[in-house]
Amino acid sequence: MSGHLGTGLEVGSPGRVLVVGSGLIGTSIGLALQGQADVVLADLDDDVLSQAVRRGAGRPWDGSAKVDHAVVAVPPRAVAATLMTLERRDVAVTWSHVASTQAVVQVEVETSGVDVARLCGSHPMAGRERPGPSAASADLFAGRPWALCPSAATGEQAFRRTRRIAELCGADPVVLSAAEHDVAVALVSHLPQVTASALAAVVLAEGGGRSGAVRLAGPGLQDTTRIAASDPGLWGDVLRQNAAAVAPLVRGLAAELLRVADGLDRLRAPGGQPDPSALSVVDDLLRRGNDGRKLIPVKHGEHDRDFAVVPVGVSDRPGQIAGVLVAAAEAGVNVEDVRVEHLAGRPRGVVGLLVQTAEQEHARAALRAAGWDVLA
Amino acid sequence: MSGHLGTGLEVGSPGRVLVVGSGLIGTSIGLALQGQADVVLADLDDDVLSQAVRRGAGRPWDGSAKVDHAVVAVPPRAVAATLMTLERRDVAVTWSHVASTQAVVQVEVETSGVDVARLCGSHPMAGRERPGPSAASADLFAGRPWALCPSAATGEQAFRRTRRIAELCGADPVVLSAAEHDVAVALVSHLPQVTASALAAVVLAEGGGRSGAVRLAGPGLQDTTRIAASDPGLWGDVLRQNAAAVAPLVRGLAAELLRVADGLDRLRAPGGQPDPSALSVVDDLLRRGNDGRKLIPVKHGEHDRDFAVVPVGVSDRPGQIAGVLVAAAEAGVNVEDVRVEHLAGRPRGVVGLLVQTAEQEHARAALRAAGWDVLA
Repeated sequence: MSGHLGTGLEVGSPGRVLVVGSGLIGTSIGLALQGQADVVLADLDDDVLSQAVRRGAGRPWDGSAKVDHAVVAVPPRAVAATLMTLERRDVAVTWSHVASTQAVVQVEVETSGVDVARLCGSHPMAGRERPGPSAASADLFAGRPWALCPSAATGEQAFRRTRRIAELCGADPVVLSAAEHDVAVALVSHLPQVTASALAAVVLAEGGGRSGAVRLAGPGLQDTTRIAASDPGLWGDVLRQNAAAVAPLVRGLAAELLRVADGLDRLRAPGGQPDPSALSVVDDLLRRGNDGRKLIPVKHGEHDRDFAVVPVGVSDRPGQIAGVLVAAAEAGVNVEDVRVEHLAGRPRGVVGLLVQTAEQEHARAALRAAGWDVLA
Repeated sequence: MSGHLGTGLEVGSPGRVLVVGSGLIGTSIGLALQGQADVVLADLDDDVLSQAVRRGAGRPWDGSAKVDHAVVAVPPRAVAATLMTLERRDVAVTWSHVASTQAVVQVEVETSGVDVARLCGSHPMAGRERPGPSAASADLFAGRPWALCPSAATGEQAFRRTRRIAELCGADPVVLSAAEHDVAVALVSHLPQVTASALAAVVLAEGGGRSGAVRLAGPGLQDTTRIAASDPGLWGDVLRQNAAAVAPLVRGLAAELLRVADGLDRLRAPGGQPDPSALSVVDDLLRRGNDGRKLIPVKHGEHDRDFAVVPVGVSDRPGQIAGVLVAAAEAGVNVEDVRVEHLAGRPRGVVGLLVQTAEQEHARAALRAAGWDVLA
């Protein structure tokens, strides 16, 4: 990328912004920019466009009005063709796209003849299970990372405007190359998806209705398989586009699993005395798992150790969760997250309040003083 | 098991109950039985015993008083020896244990000369990250499955009393054989633990601090690796004891992953045209993942499809979550669970209320009417 990245800060409104593609991401960008930019919208599908307009994401673009910046929010495979068509009509000063994989798109764009100095690739790390403008939200990007992937040719104005759009959407911009992006999302997004799907597929094959094993399932299985419910159509495309980065990680995970399966097999070798090296294979995996987990941000760069859960026993009547939270709010406790366990149809449940570790003792004392059953 | 299981229902108090082993599980059982049984406690470690007594889990056992039922809540490897010692002193009419693996313990007990007609194995599906009486809670078992694993020799009185203890602790008794239990927990508990640990270990090896990939991490990676934070000491033991059941499942998961890695590799074969059979490998995994996830109970046998999330946009001021829940409670909406996203340090966040699907529209309308920003 040319210019002096990061030395100049784009402030204020990006002016008039064209969002091309009024799906979940495009409509959410339009909604988030309301009051901060003059947004015009385009979509190949008139019905989708009018839904986005009705949601309040912007005015329909007339097909010729010039804009300061255009965000191409179409599927990755259509980005280069869309840019070629629109740039020929010279509708925007600078351009960005929001493709969920970056390297393939960057190569396609570079070979298409588009003016790459005026373009910056980007990818907001946000989504929903449902697609389309009806699932869009002004808050979709709030607090989420938004990858900015300038190429070597990306000019400073295109980069700054793209970063400004991310900021105005409430996201945290993270600058990295297209290749770095694809490797990173392979690890933090695509590999967990494959893992959750494969684990749920084993449950289907092994447990399921036949054995009734799932009757014993608890929160561990629930959390590890939550994203296995994701849309196969969407994820099939994502995995295909990033196959080169995802495949070795999936192999690496399989190798870890085979190593621990070998260790477990050697533990039950005939003779009674377990092989000490087999014991260490299992322990080593669990310890490295601990260390890996500590690296994963759970809130904005803050990690597990910064937070503590305050569990409160409640009855299963409407309003009990609210009561606990009102008591916490009245005591000035900032509740970061709430987990509710075993309430449905049960006489008792537990509401877990996630608070900063430093606030834990105050929260416990205040809730006890308010008459709540704070558990040990 | 002899007798007519399930035809006779044990009601009322189990009388005097001895809990042997005052760790997390034993102390929690004592706490849960308060007011429902006369609980006496024992532990080899006097400090641990006095902690459990101070928590209010029961009176110290004098070492000779006879009891109606004894729950042996010691580590699995110590169950048979503990039973042999205590049965010689004829302290209880019936016996149970709470070992996290059942088949090995059952064989050990049968070869130890203990009167197995008076014994029923069991396993409450509950735990905490922290061990010991200080982490115990009367609510630990509320709404959780509690496996009952009678052997062929288990008599009806021992079975009924063991079931009654589980019920009085607020758990849902599930009857299955020791072998079925071990296979089931291998699938729903031990395999997810190995999976989360292995995924986090890959993050450690690949991503971690070096590449900065974790800056792009979202809720998917967070949820799939949550239990990777579990105690390696505890889990090493569990995996060793159930190695025979866990190893083939871990191999099965590795095989799923290698199949999809092969598919991904074939997608990027030179020549440009992806192999259609490779496409179907990826899609097939995602679809089976969908089907497997649907089998996993998320609330007491109710599944994902029975619930809907109502997302509400809030500002990051204390009391906002409480405000949403008060509005829901005032409208008579039964909130099953709460998820809070991107609040820490952000001007805006989203509170997701999990409600029965049938209640969804009412909840949305009521919250909108109360002035809350219900998202699409």
